[in-house]
Amino acid sequence: MCESNVYLKSNDVEKLVMENVAAISPLGDKKFLLKGLLGDTLEISGEIEDINLMAHKIVIASA
Amino acid sequence: MCESNVYLKSNDVEKLVMENVAAISPLGDKKFLLKGLLGDTLEISGEIEDINLMAHKIVIASA
Repeated sequence: MCESNVYLKSNDVEKLVMENVAAISPLGDKKFLLKGLLGDTLEISGEIEDINLMAHKIVIASA
Repeated sequence: MCESNVYLKSNDVEKLVMENVAAISPLGDKKFLLKGLLGDTLEISGEIEDINLMAHKIVIASA
């Protein structure tokens, strides 16, 4: 499976905010909607800092 | 394997610009560096419109 874990980075500290993220859609105004495998969603504010598909890791820097 | 195909969307048309992308890093100023499995890279301009990890598809809207 190819879901990723999404981390929110704030003050150089990365915090895991959601596991098994299947899709990410920008909502505008530096907001993103994370969609999980089971239909769960989470809205977070920030900018994409790094996408590493091999490490299953996406980092969003806190806005 | 979890690489994605990256599409550049312009005038509502999606064009495949790179296959087997392993990582994406923003370069600032609406530019992104796509990194392939084999170390190949491609710099493109635009904004992330959609990330669908299950479909292995990332769409970047042309800037």
